[in-house]
Amino acid sequence: MIAEIIAVGSEMLTPHRQDTNSLFLTAGLNDLGVEVGFKTIVGDNPHRLVEAIHNALRRADILILSGGLGPTEDDLTRECVAEALDLNLLTDAAAVLALQARFKARRMEMPSNNLKQAQVIDGAELLPNPNGSAPGQWLETVIRTAAGHTHRRLIILLPGPPKELKAIYAEEVRPRLAEVLPPHFLARRVLRMALIPESTVDARTAPIYRRFADVETTILAGHGEIQLHFLCAKDTQEEAEDRVDQVAELVEREMGDDIFSSDGESLEEIVLLMLGLRGLKLAVAESCTGGLLAERITAIPNASRNFLGGAIVYSNELKIGFCKVPAKLLSQHGAVSPEVARSLAEGIRERTKASLGLSITGIAGPAIPDGPDSDKPVGLVYIGLADEEDTQVKRFMIPGDRDRVRLWATQYALEMLRHTLQ
Amino acid sequence: MIAEIIAVGSEMLTPHRQDTNSLFLTAGLNDLGVEVGFKTIVGDNPHRLVEAIHNALRRADILILSGGLGPTEDDLTRECVAEALDLNLLTDAAAVLALQARFKARRMEMPSNNLKQAQVIDGAELLPNPNGSAPGQWLETVIRTAAGHTHRRLIILLPGPPKELKAIYAEEVRPRLAEVLPPHFLARRVLRMALIPESTVDARTAPIYRRFADVETTILAGHGEIQLHFLCAKDTQEEAEDRVDQVAELVEREMGDDIFSSDGESLEEIVLLMLGLRGLKLAVAESCTGGLLAERITAIPNASRNFLGGAIVYSNELKIGFCKVPAKLLSQHGAVSPEVARSLAEGIRERTKASLGLSITGIAGPAIPDGPDSDKPVGLVYIGLADEEDTQVKRFMIPGDRDRVRLWATQYALEMLRHTLQ
Repeated sequence: MIAEIIAVGSEMLTPHRQDTNSLFLTAGLNDLGVEVGFKTIVGDNPHRLVEAIHNALRRADILILSGGLGPTEDDLTRECVAEALDLNLLTDAAAVLALQARFKARRMEMPSNNLKQAQVIDGAELLPNPNGSAPGQWLETVIRTAAGHTHRRLIILLPGPPKELKAIYAEEVRPRLAEVLPPHFLARRVLRMALIPESTVDARTAPIYRRFADVETTILAGHGEIQLHFLCAKDTQEEAEDRVDQVAELVEREMGDDIFSSDGESLEEIVLLMLGLRGLKLAVAESCTGGLLAERITAIPNASRNFLGGAIVYSNELKIGFCKVPAKLLSQHGAVSPEVARSLAEGIRERTKASLGLSITGIAGPAIPDGPDSDKPVGLVYIGLADEEDTQVKRFMIPGDRDRVRLWATQYALEMLRHTLQ
Repeated sequence: MIAEIIAVGSEMLTPHRQDTNSLFLTAGLNDLGVEVGFKTIVGDNPHRLVEAIHNALRRADILILSGGLGPTEDDLTRECVAEALDLNLLTDAAAVLALQARFKARRMEMPSNNLKQAQVIDGAELLPNPNGSAPGQWLETVIRTAAGHTHRRLIILLPGPPKELKAIYAEEVRPRLAEVLPPHFLARRVLRMALIPESTVDARTAPIYRRFADVETTILAGHGEIQLHFLCAKDTQEEAEDRVDQVAELVEREMGDDIFSSDGESLEEIVLLMLGLRGLKLAVAESCTGGLLAERITAIPNASRNFLGGAIVYSNELKIGFCKVPAKLLSQHGAVSPEVARSLAEGIRERTKASLGLSITGIAGPAIPDGPDSDKPVGLVYIGLADEEDTQVKRFMIPGDRDRVRLWATQYALEMLRHTLQ
């Protein structure tokens, strides 16, 4: 079974907008065992849209179109699908009433062009849209090729706004697809690791996952993180789960502590979870990362249970004022030094009465000639972690631009914390 | 002139990866007056790729393919373009030598499958790749339709990695395109506004920009910001600039102070610029935003000139400890109150000796039943701004989830600061 997704809308042929619905739809189709063979993006141009539909009918069993179901002249998906299939458009009386009721509930007069949205392709079923005025459509049909062969085709029309598309897919499309498609049982697992090169992960895990030809393995890398996705389809749910568990267990044994989560949690969530289990409170002192570490931690709901807050000590005065870093240390070693990282971690811990103090100081770049740390390279970062007994300080050299240095510095800090809590 | 972009690679037909090269290529083609009519995404499957190329040759004048130029068996773009055009692949001796030199420079033996990358479609020109082993290809050709008509077609093959694709486009493709395409002069301007509904911007500016039929206007909304993009193509650069200036000036007059930048700068950049011009230093105290405000400001290079840092006062203890908020104020009014916002702004200003103290306290959500502020609604945010003479406090109700409340709270804070500095 091959599907094609056609995203309709001129805005997606500009440099500013991208079709993202297809990612959601692809996940849904894959779940049911359907492969996406093609994606096409076409503007609000009837000639081009009909041509795209003709191509798709030739090469795909299932065709999902998103967008172009609005009430304006530019919204042409209904018309173009009908034309490509040589079918009529009929006005659905119930849909007209539903539209009128929708406008009445909002105390608005329905513009006459909204009537378009009650038009249904002959033979199609309308799919109610709880979040908008454009219903979707579901059409099972048979096409005949130039050579006289016939093929069954399933054509699904969905509105473009993601909230509307997702609701109709979940409520109407998925159950219908599950009914017409052969049964399909899928299991998946995601293992997440931080700060290891993708090539290292692949070199160490490929000898394992290659032995599981029936498990599809994908490695995703980015933002200082590597994810290993395992996906397996079998005749029963149990068989699929078993295979995914087997490969995941072997990979977990190989990668050990480098894996920070095997159930989808982010590094921030894992660290907060560990702090919670041990009843510990964390405070941070950030220089070059300027709040990014705290921002990542506080993006997790209920972070306040184990995160007190901290200080953004961008200036030397604040390093002294908030973390009691001795002025002499700053003048002797510079703000980017192991001595200052240690003093910041210990100082923020003491000032906030936290169980753990975590500090970051570094050169995020771009280089400032004649700046206070101009003798130190961009990417040099020191991280300090103080607890009741001890303070660790580590040195990192992070290649890349300002954004990358800042992001990776927070990854290193969270990983240092995780390893210490383990 | 219509272009089609074909992105080749099975990973872009998964739920995890998206083709982003086409946004870059579209911007480049639009700059030269070429419209992108279709985008197609196809996997590493020769049959499907040939079919996609055939479709594109029928409907587009310019065809750009990205990806599939690597050395592996899965890399089939060269072969499929040659097959679709019924042309041979030839081995380019100079390209073989270049590949061998590349590997030698890295002290590596060249695997024999890399020889594929020296194959050139008969009639095509190789485009050197400074960042990788896969050269691009440029082919001007003529196709004959089934009906016997002939059409000129330009076919460009580029490697998939964005760094390689962008460099070859800039160095090799753009100059060649500029030569073969009719001259085209473009002017553009971007006006940026924060925190106004898109519908308000449109209602107030559409009567203006609609009078400029020769200027293409696009409104982009997201992340608490509205951008108005103006684009105009004329026979001379001066004419194009004139028209864009005219519409921008009228819109600037209409929207007044709501426009924070008319030259592309971000809100953070503008605020730092204004602080710099007035020689002022800023410090922040963040509760519910947990460092996001500071993180946004410090993402701008050289923020340290006018940003001292601040405190993340997630717990009440830190509000007291870092910002000298009276404990009585917290117990009487709660942490999310105008009184505490005022005290935080004044306290952080005093503690850091900054010229301006900016504070945020609010309920980012999700709601915590029986929490300390459970009587207050999610989305309630108070922002305080203290200077030498005065402290302003404003109340906001921000709808949406945790991420949205936090982001919009920082937008409101930056806008409050900008209006005060103006």
